[in-house]
Amino acid sequence: MKRRLYTPGPTPIPPEAVLAMAQPIEYHRSQEFRALVRRVRENLRYVWCTESEVAILAASGTGAMEFAIVNLFSPGDTVAGIRGGKFGERWGDIATAYGLAYVPIDVEWGTSPDAEEVASVLDAHPGAKALLTTLCETSTGALQDICAYSDVTQERGTLLVVDAVSALGADEIRMDAWGVDALVSCSQKGLMTPPGLAFCALSERARQASERSTLPKHYFSYAKALKNQAKDETPFTPAISLLYGLDAALTAMREEGIENVWARHARLAHATRAGAKALGLPLFAAHPANALTSIRLPDDCDGAALVRHIRNAHGAIFAGGQEHLAGRIVRIAHLGWMDNYDVLTALGALECGMRDVGMDIRLGAGVAAVLEALSQPPV
Amino acid sequence: MKRRLYTPGPTPIPPEAVLAMAQPIEYHRSQEFRALVRRVRENLRYVWCTESEVAILAASGTGAMEFAIVNLFSPGDTVAGIRGGKFGERWGDIATAYGLAYVPIDVEWGTSPDAEEVASVLDAHPGAKALLTTLCETSTGALQDICAYSDVTQERGTLLVVDAVSALGADEIRMDAWGVDALVSCSQKGLMTPPGLAFCALSERARQASERSTLPKHYFSYAKALKNQAKDETPFTPAISLLYGLDAALTAMREEGIENVWARHARLAHATRAGAKALGLPLFAAHPANALTSIRLPDDCDGAALVRHIRNAHGAIFAGGQEHLAGRIVRIAHLGWMDNYDVLTALGALECGMRDVGMDIRLGAGVAAVLEALSQPPV
Repeated sequence: MKRRLYTPGPTPIPPEAVLAMAQPIEYHRSQEFRALVRRVRENLRYVWCTESEVAILAASGTGAMEFAIVNLFSPGDTVAGIRGGKFGERWGDIATAYGLAYVPIDVEWGTSPDAEEVASVLDAHPGAKALLTTLCETSTGALQDICAYSDVTQERGTLLVVDAVSALGADEIRMDAWGVDALVSCSQKGLMTPPGLAFCALSERARQASERSTLPKHYFSYAKALKNQAKDETPFTPAISLLYGLDAALTAMREEGIENVWARHARLAHATRAGAKALGLPLFAAHPANALTSIRLPDDCDGAALVRHIRNAHGAIFAGGQEHLAGRIVRIAHLGWMDNYDVLTALGALECGMRDVGMDIRLGAGVAAVLEALSQPPV
Repeated sequence: MKRRLYTPGPTPIPPEAVLAMAQPIEYHRSQEFRALVRRVRENLRYVWCTESEVAILAASGTGAMEFAIVNLFSPGDTVAGIRGGKFGERWGDIATAYGLAYVPIDVEWGTSPDAEEVASVLDAHPGAKALLTTLCETSTGALQDICAYSDVTQERGTLLVVDAVSALGADEIRMDAWGVDALVSCSQKGLMTPPGLAFCALSERARQASERSTLPKHYFSYAKALKNQAKDETPFTPAISLLYGLDAALTAMREEGIENVWARHARLAHATRAGAKALGLPLFAAHPANALTSIRLPDDCDGAALVRHIRNAHGAIFAGGQEHLAGRIVRIAHLGWMDNYDVLTALGALECGMRDVGMDIRLGAGVAAVLEALSQPPV
């Protein structure tokens, strides 16, 4: 059966990246490989919208979150973090594992706090060194208003740390212009590359903070990354074949233009939401991200069985809900190497699956709404 | 120009692994992917010669070294480590970064301490929790006598931690039978897979030590690895495409048989040493490993220029010396996906390069010695 991957990471790999990864392995201490690293560094800065160096790690996205923590803080430091899903929780887990005092800003899953709520927590904890945020909370599809939080953090001299693991290259984020101090992402989402590479850029203010940080670090040392990347190398053996793929994917993103990449994701997200609404399914997130769409299922629907059936009978691989949302939502990513017809197919498979399991829908309503939404001028 | 990779990591990738990595990305929380993880876990245990779980990390080899440190120790613990090259030094760097008291057992680069030297250091530091060793010190090609050290560590209740990054799958190591407590390696050496995966297995004694360890950890948590791998998953998104490649490479190793893999490397190393000697070049390491051969160059030879010339004019990519050995040695790996004719070619390229730069050699002596050595019965 033809399978189509709609999980919010990993995402499909474009053929030029697959082909690039099949190249023979090059020795990483060579002029040829340094030329590739130089190009990747430049294109990462372009996608991050920053002049700062983007550290390249052989790790999962969680490794880059840990990189941000161990380089910015010292034992006993206080950090505040927005917790409205699994990845907000992860910031708290990492901070706690490293002996930081973690102040959660708890919000209902699927929602995001407004800037006033964030400000009041930071005012109640004036010693908090940082606000830990998640541009797109992958477990719920909720978008956080990083721009608005930035006003709050800059006023108070608090570092703004953003996990953009699933959102980078889908939802607009401009590191320098928006005053982001640490911007974390990884390869297997909007960057259209297999998992195994992770990234973190630090602002000048964050770089200064990193010089005062005393948390133990070695593999995730920012100082080592900076020193080696200045020579177009990495401190430790890089994930060479994945960098071949990333180079091809970043080149494609640069050719498309980052604003166009964001606009494409906005269009695909808009169409997916329209399709879900036409099927009578409410969106789960109050402010949905453009990386993925979380759809709330009727209470009498076994969401896990639906996702499994759509995978097995229709080849479309959606993600279900996590933790207390297991079986309650379906998550459809339109992330990375995706176009209009991928979204059409996703809705088609969703409709057919719902019909198969006996849900009461008007077959064709979703896909019609997708085409209608895609034919409208950009929102 | 046709290029041939003889660096002691990365090493060439066999075509079945390259093809496997070109497969479409599978969602890692699926039955299909769990079946792959189950097979990889089983084959890793086979190659490690252990019944213990081998933790699978998305990281470079250094990440797995850090994994061993952060899971076994607590702040202020004393550890002893053999330091006779860049990777022995790395154990010290990591231990020191994490606030351990590090007792170096310094030996001249290219040599390894005997068991008595190790015993006397451990006796002088009876509080030392572990001995940190390097099966093959990649920077020099020297082999350490892990079996002999094991008698010393077991007698004293000291943990035996082995970096087998470049040696695993080349030089014999039997984790359980030899009493090794932590055995670290990574993908891009004997395991014939691109860099980006790293591994560490812990003995039962080490697992118990890990429960007492209080060093901070999250991404490199052994407890998380154990818990998730029991379900054929990894705690964080795995490097999916690299695992496809690893699965193919491990399957090939299992078909060949690990004893045969070791014997092949012993044969290739023996032939390489014979070729070097026939060219009048002494070996650098007192007890050379089978993963790579380090050859000492005449004092009047610019080794860096020779390695560069051989690369540019003959397409054979050797490694030079590191740190104070820069320009003084050439390192030729016969590691991973390598056979007799790869060694013949390596010596041929070495001879031609030496001739080109005006060194006084009898052209053909090296390759003749290689063929002669390969035609002898196994040593």
